[in-house]
Amino acid sequence: MINKNTRFLIIGLGLMGGSYAMGLSKKGYHVDAIDLNELSIQYAKEHGIIQNGATFDIQLIKNADIIISGLYPEAMIHWYSTYQKYFKPHTFLTDVSGIKCNVVNQVQSILRDDIEFCASHPMAGKEVSGVTYADHTIFKDANFIITPTKSNTSQAVDTLTQFANILEFKNISILSCEEHDKMIGFVSQLTHAIAVSLMNTSDNPNLVKYTGDSFRDLTRIAKINENLWSELFFLNKDNLIPEIDSFIYQIQKLKNMLETNNKDGLKELFIQSTIRRKRFDQ
Amino acid sequence: MINKNTRFLIIGLGLMGGSYAMGLSKKGYHVDAIDLNELSIQYAKEHGIIQNGATFDIQLIKNADIIISGLYPEAMIHWYSTYQKYFKPHTFLTDVSGIKCNVVNQVQSILRDDIEFCASHPMAGKEVSGVTYADHTIFKDANFIITPTKSNTSQAVDTLTQFANILEFKNISILSCEEHDKMIGFVSQLTHAIAVSLMNTSDNPNLVKYTGDSFRDLTRIAKINENLWSELFFLNKDNLIPEIDSFIYQIQKLKNMLETNNKDGLKELFIQSTIRRKRFDQ
Repeated sequence: MINKNTRFLIIGLGLMGGSYAMGLSKKGYHVDAIDLNELSIQYAKEHGIIQNGATFDIQLIKNADIIISGLYPEAMIHWYSTYQKYFKPHTFLTDVSGIKCNVVNQVQSILRDDIEFCASHPMAGKEVSGVTYADHTIFKDANFIITPTKSNTSQAVDTLTQFANILEFKNISILSCEEHDKMIGFVSQLTHAIAVSLMNTSDNPNLVKYTGDSFRDLTRIAKINENLWSELFFLNKDNLIPEIDSFIYQIQKLKNMLETNNKDGLKELFIQSTIRRKRFDQ
Repeated sequence: MINKNTRFLIIGLGLMGGSYAMGLSKKGYHVDAIDLNELSIQYAKEHGIIQNGATFDIQLIKNADIIISGLYPEAMIHWYSTYQKYFKPHTFLTDVSGIKCNVVNQVQSILRDDIEFCASHPMAGKEVSGVTYADHTIFKDANFIITPTKSNTSQAVDTLTQFANILEFKNISILSCEEHDKMIGFVSQLTHAIAVSLMNTSDNPNLVKYTGDSFRDLTRIAKINENLWSELFFLNKDNLIPEIDSFIYQIQKLKNMLETNNKDGLKELFIQSTIRRKRFDQ
């Protein structure tokens, strides 16, 4: 479990890694960080986000009790694989990856026997990146999802639950990797695919003059980090592709109501979406 | 032009009619209203939103200098057609309809020669309806679009410009009906079609536990008034259907990148949407 002697090490001081570091430091925990960017380390030290940091430092790795990867999935797998030889016995690992099955299976299969990796997903963010935007308050209304596999211990789940409570996440859930990735394929990845596609549907630069809140809301997430999201999309394409198909089926059904002058059918679609959306306002 | 002796008459005290009435009254103008719902009239009188009102009153119609329909398009056409016999000479008419071509042509073709109808569209709203939600501040960040036809006078456009300034709209634009309806087909109707279809894609009631801001933003407008929006969709289906097709083409292109493992192609789509979306933040 986490206590005041626990030494956290964040790998990758981006928006999420930085926000984790900030939240933990504000609660009085010891947080170090490794990031390839010297400026990120300097910034984080100067702003009290971390205590120690370096672009690389074996001693920081050796001192860590809990290592949190803020890296993109493929970079994380590479990093854990390369540097696990320096981990102290029984170091606990977690991550922030937006998809789980493909990542978790790979990490768990390469790790030393005395090291436990239990994956988790903070469902929070902003359309910006980098430690200068770090903000631990993004967790206050957010879900924290723990995705243990059969090789994880109940202590790992307890530790992550404690971790999420320290950072004041609103909800903590436990899902299997498969449940997580299916859910994410719908609520996160499909929504991003839609926003990107809507934004790409028109190249009229004058639209900005006439858009109301609706178009702005639907395209906010079309401003997207292409490296991170292409990685996430491909790692979860087996879930995402069927969700795209289901959505296309629905919008074609709506189009069909227009083409066949089926007013009652169109109203039924509106009534259904209204009933379903109201659940989200409760 | 509008002056302090101008008597406004609002037909239909819903959210938009009520918000217009509130904004005009707050600026010291005389506003009357007709609404089939006696409770709406009572509420508006008690809250200083209107001066006089009734479920029907020929004298209110005869006194009006400017009549604004807050009705749905088909109800408006019916109302103007039926009651124009009571209008004082040179009464000026406008509306709040979300689509224009089909509506404007019909209204202008049935009106007395001395009566001018120039259409306009306040691009503002909320996901609620009724005068109890009236709020003139919804116009402060909104666009006001005037859609004159060749039978409209420049005075009509001036009057509507003055009207929009009184209500403190942020931008005032002049578009042809055709330009307006094509633009609305994209920025408003396609976005609503997408939101409704996304909401209808999954009937999993547990999703609410796991959704972040993205899904909420994309489905906010899936809570939709089925009577108003089915009318608007059908009146503009010649613009909306091709927009739905263009959007489906884009999302199928994205899906195709996943299926063919085209990482660079997917990144290109993300880069394009990011560049386009950034224009909206300026």
